[in-house]
Amino acid sequence: MTHPALPDIRALLGDANVLTGGDTEPYDTPWRGVEYKGTSALVALPASVPQLQALVRLCADRRIPIVPQGGNTGLVGGSTPDASGNEIIISTKRLRAIRAIDGANASATVEAGLTLAETKEKLAQQGWLFPLGMASEGSATIGGCLATNAGGIQVLRYGMMRELTIGIEAVLPDGSLFSDLSGLRKDNTGYGLSQLLIGSEGTLAVLTAASLRLVPMPKQRVTAWASLPDITSALALLNLARARCDSFLTAFELIGGDALSLVTSHIEGCRAPVAETLPCHVLLECQAADPDLPIADALERTLADAMEKTLVHNAVLARSDTEAASLWKLREAITEAQRHAGVTINFDISLPIARLDEWVEAARKAVHKTHADTSIIMFGHLGDGNLHFNLLERDPAKKDAFLARKPE
Amino acid sequence: MTHPALPDIRALLGDANVLTGGDTEPYDTPWRGVEYKGTSALVALPASVPQLQALVRLCADRRIPIVPQGGNTGLVGGSTPDASGNEIIISTKRLRAIRAIDGANASATVEAGLTLAETKEKLAQQGWLFPLGMASEGSATIGGCLATNAGGIQVLRYGMMRELTIGIEAVLPDGSLFSDLSGLRKDNTGYGLSQLLIGSEGTLAVLTAASLRLVPMPKQRVTAWASLPDITSALALLNLARARCDSFLTAFELIGGDALSLVTSHIEGCRAPVAETLPCHVLLECQAADPDLPIADALERTLADAMEKTLVHNAVLARSDTEAASLWKLREAITEAQRHAGVTINFDISLPIARLDEWVEAARKAVHKTHADTSIIMFGHLGDGNLHFNLLERDPAKKDAFLARKPE
Repeated sequence: MTHPALPDIRALLGDANVLTGGDTEPYDTPWRGVEYKGTSALVALPASVPQLQALVRLCADRRIPIVPQGGNTGLVGGSTPDASGNEIIISTKRLRAIRAIDGANASATVEAGLTLAETKEKLAQQGWLFPLGMASEGSATIGGCLATNAGGIQVLRYGMMRELTIGIEAVLPDGSLFSDLSGLRKDNTGYGLSQLLIGSEGTLAVLTAASLRLVPMPKQRVTAWASLPDITSALALLNLARARCDSFLTAFELIGGDALSLVTSHIEGCRAPVAETLPCHVLLECQAADPDLPIADALERTLADAMEKTLVHNAVLARSDTEAASLWKLREAITEAQRHAGVTINFDISLPIARLDEWVEAARKAVHKTHADTSIIMFGHLGDGNLHFNLLERDPAKKDAFLARKPE
Repeated sequence: MTHPALPDIRALLGDANVLTGGDTEPYDTPWRGVEYKGTSALVALPASVPQLQALVRLCADRRIPIVPQGGNTGLVGGSTPDASGNEIIISTKRLRAIRAIDGANASATVEAGLTLAETKEKLAQQGWLFPLGMASEGSATIGGCLATNAGGIQVLRYGMMRELTIGIEAVLPDGSLFSDLSGLRKDNTGYGLSQLLIGSEGTLAVLTAASLRLVPMPKQRVTAWASLPDITSALALLNLARARCDSFLTAFELIGGDALSLVTSHIEGCRAPVAETLPCHVLLECQAADPDLPIADALERTLADAMEKTLVHNAVLARSDTEAASLWKLREAITEAQRHAGVTINFDISLPIARLDEWVEAARKAVHKTHADTSIIMFGHLGDGNLHFNLLERDPAKKDAFLARKPE
């Protein structure tokens, strides 16, 4: 059965840019596949903002529900349709221009459909860093990063997507265009509507472009690994690092002992950077735009201080890019190692930083009370209070029973 | 004539906390006095959030228009009533608590009525800097800074009030309480309503408290003065400084040649830091939380580079706190010097940084075409594209004719 508006939408966008039947499958299915899979009436891929406006107007006139979609890597169902078959997906994938790079303003105007990785690569060619980084950046689009107020591994220094956005362009539900792309660093005229659209998960408008803040490409990078007895020590190390390394501190990633063991036993070539087995590890990174600022000294002093205070038991400083990459691999391979080891129930949670330790202990006890042999794979962005807290079941026979208990 | 709701409002707040008649004058009159003066029915000063909620509910029930007010230092009329005599002012001045300081989270929960200066002083006692700075901070309140999305002299490094706010508490028009004070560094649940309230000039809610980001108190500070041939050179210096001094660069203030002359001729004890008379000057400041980071070196190298490239003709680095204070005095005394010299028409404008030079030249020509003897007093936050562009008439006889031409 074809959708009644199909001929008109085809006429508007061209036949090749309207997907139906089995072709909608990859758009209906979110990244992790299991949850939030829906059924769309069709997928529309407009090539320009005026085309997108015409399409939204058409949908508004005929009361057709729409779901805006970027890279479809979200994990909360914001980018996929419901099961009704009535909703049409509007993908912004074909809006791919970098409209302008303004060096004096340290900003760029980027369209919604470009992936985060493509955006960063194109800006890097002009000497600029767009300082947002996450595992899904090869698929996640700028529009999706805006709609979800994405974070990642550099939030500590640069903030989330919200802080990195100067203004937004979006098509409103009636097809009209909202534009706040003046690029003005300071603009207090009217309400902060761009800010309301950021994080609105596509429910208020279809985001089409944004004016983004850039920073000069770092000229040096220093990476270190520290092993600690507990999260309280890690928090103390964070405060030391903030005071010593100032705003150079770009990443402060917590890796639980179980998460590290998982990676070293399941991923080839991954070895623990220090011999001792401790329950808590931290990956620290500092970056600087100037090649002469002594950021390695600052990081070394931080770690020396922390060892003197017995917060840190062991630490290594990467002496080369290869060593730094090996340390990052230990952090980045956790998800892959989880897949090798069994099935997981994943939680991505935000906590008041001061109470993080307390929460983790309580959660660990609660889990082990009923599931004594469940491993707790914990990692995350400690400086932001954002923790991945995943439960791992290694026994394939117990998989279904384990997953069925997720709601608990 | 007394307001029909006066007895009930008095009963709610206590007689002493409801001002009428001549007592409303300081609240009806904005900081600069001339524009936006209005007439309120009364001024209500609630002592707590529940009291404020009850008051707003009362006003909602009786359809009494309200104007929320903080320090009343705004310049666009957001904090003063209209001339009707129907509006009541709700001052948040008595909401003065610092409810919490959370060191691990580097945040504090502060009530709306505390002035910015009081807030900074109290946080400094605990070793924290709240990095917002402006001339009016002795009177401007936290609530007012939120309602206007205030900026100031440290925006370059730390951002405006919006970037410094984690969440907000506010009383909505029906008297209900909106609260987003969890302090979570990352919170993407629901819409970014706190963000919408920031910069809304008191039109959507009465702001009662905010969770604010803090940074460790800087342990060192280096200040420099540079003289340049034009704004284009100043922009090139800004880019050099960004690359060399990285995020230590805290202030980059432009001071026009005429503005400097005005200060040195009208303010006692102010002398130009360099002998040569150039049309453009920049005050640079770097700050660092660690006492050992060589930020003075970085700033010196920036200036040496810039002199080699003939962007900068002359530069001095402050060798003591006293010298630094003298440099800052030259920037801060401009407004006072203007008052001594004559009357001014003031503009506080935002411009795309790349086109600032072009705009200033065009504006200068346009002014001098019809007003050949008008001095242009120019200063501002170059890194934010925020410029104060003021026209000065020195002849008292011409004052009224001059002011009458402001709309032009």
